[in-house]
Amino acid sequence: MEKGSQVDRPLVIVISGPSGVGKDATIARIKETGIKFHYVVTATTRARRPRETDGIDYYFLTHENFIEKVNKEEFLEYAEVYGNYYGVLKKEVSQALQKGEDVILKVDVQGAATLKKKMPEAVFIFLLPPSVEDLSERLRNRNADTQTAVRLRIDKAEQELKCLAVFDYGVVNHTDALEKTANAVKAIVTAEKCRIKPRIVEI
Amino acid sequence: MEKGSQVDRPLVIVISGPSGVGKDATIARIKETGIKFHYVVTATTRARRPRETDGIDYYFLTHENFIEKVNKEEFLEYAEVYGNYYGVLKKEVSQALQKGEDVILKVDVQGAATLKKKMPEAVFIFLLPPSVEDLSERLRNRNADTQTAVRLRIDKAEQELKCLAVFDYGVVNHTDALEKTANAVKAIVTAEKCRIKPRIVEI
Repeated sequence: MEKGSQVDRPLVIVISGPSGVGKDATIARIKETGIKFHYVVTATTRARRPRETDGIDYYFLTHENFIEKVNKEEFLEYAEVYGNYYGVLKKEVSQALQKGEDVILKVDVQGAATLKKKMPEAVFIFLLPPSVEDLSERLRNRNADTQTAVRLRIDKAEQELKCLAVFDYGVVNHTDALEKTANAVKAIVTAEKCRIKPRIVEI
Repeated sequence: MEKGSQVDRPLVIVISGPSGVGKDATIARIKETGIKFHYVVTATTRARRPRETDGIDYYFLTHENFIEKVNKEEFLEYAEVYGNYYGVLKKEVSQALQKGEDVILKVDVQGAATLKKKMPEAVFIFLLPPSVEDLSERLRNRNADTQTAVRLRIDKAEQELKCLAVFDYGVVNHTDALEKTANAVKAIVTAEKCRIKPRIVEI
């Protein structure tokens, strides 16, 4: 009787969206609500920022180490973004699914497009800025990047907003309403758990 | 920018499931939470039960009056169930959609199958009993029906559970956790509002 309803079967939730839209903050807020997920840690070659911790925010790898894992086909997807590599390790996802745990992961839009091909049954959520102006503002206020880097990111964001078709859901993230954004993601998870035709992700 | 995201566009939510599963109680609970819907009132020829109000619980029509509306093609769907007619009036749905209001309606499983053909873009939710035994218990405790009527309903329920494929979502309704059921329906509505490819119902 329970088949096809609210049975626990692991979902893969992919959170994506333009740089600066608030992917990290949204996932942090979801974590705080206590909803159980296996939070996938992305591997990267980019420099660690202040307050970031290796193994929690990212796995910070050397370029050499990253390429070694690429050659060993240990990545589900990887991409070069702004001169740095970012990748999702296969075993981070497959081990969690084998344990029956829901998986949540954060990738850039290019990464989401790759994952869509490899895991079409994952749930793809695009975080939208309220407007392009708002996104520019956020990136400028972040102060972590040079002016040229900010411009590059804004140009890219405008391109990425054209890639919405890859995604199942779009959630507008107002920075002052992170709670609402996290609740929308949680509602999507609840709804997906009720689907009659389950999404079964195979890696 | 807002296109394809959390823009308000009217949804049609179809709540169905076996007789006795708790469709009315679930919808009543959703109403209490203050979520805005146009709640479609079903027309029926069946006798009014104590505590039911014409125009609120149902439109109680005479057999003659009902058939007249059938002939005038005023129903989106109608069906005979246990010797009585039940139907959803087209204008109840179309007028609400024109005003941009989300619509929620309750139909039996046969009705849902008909609506699926006429409104494939509606959101179909099947309320599931925790088990067939549980459903039998509920129907027996209702005391509104004769023993034969109860048996007929249980047989029918077992058939209906095979019709899950028509539906998008299945929500298990535990009578002691109506809040959870209502929240699942609300989550489904929130998620559907975030769909990149909107469901546009046309009547």
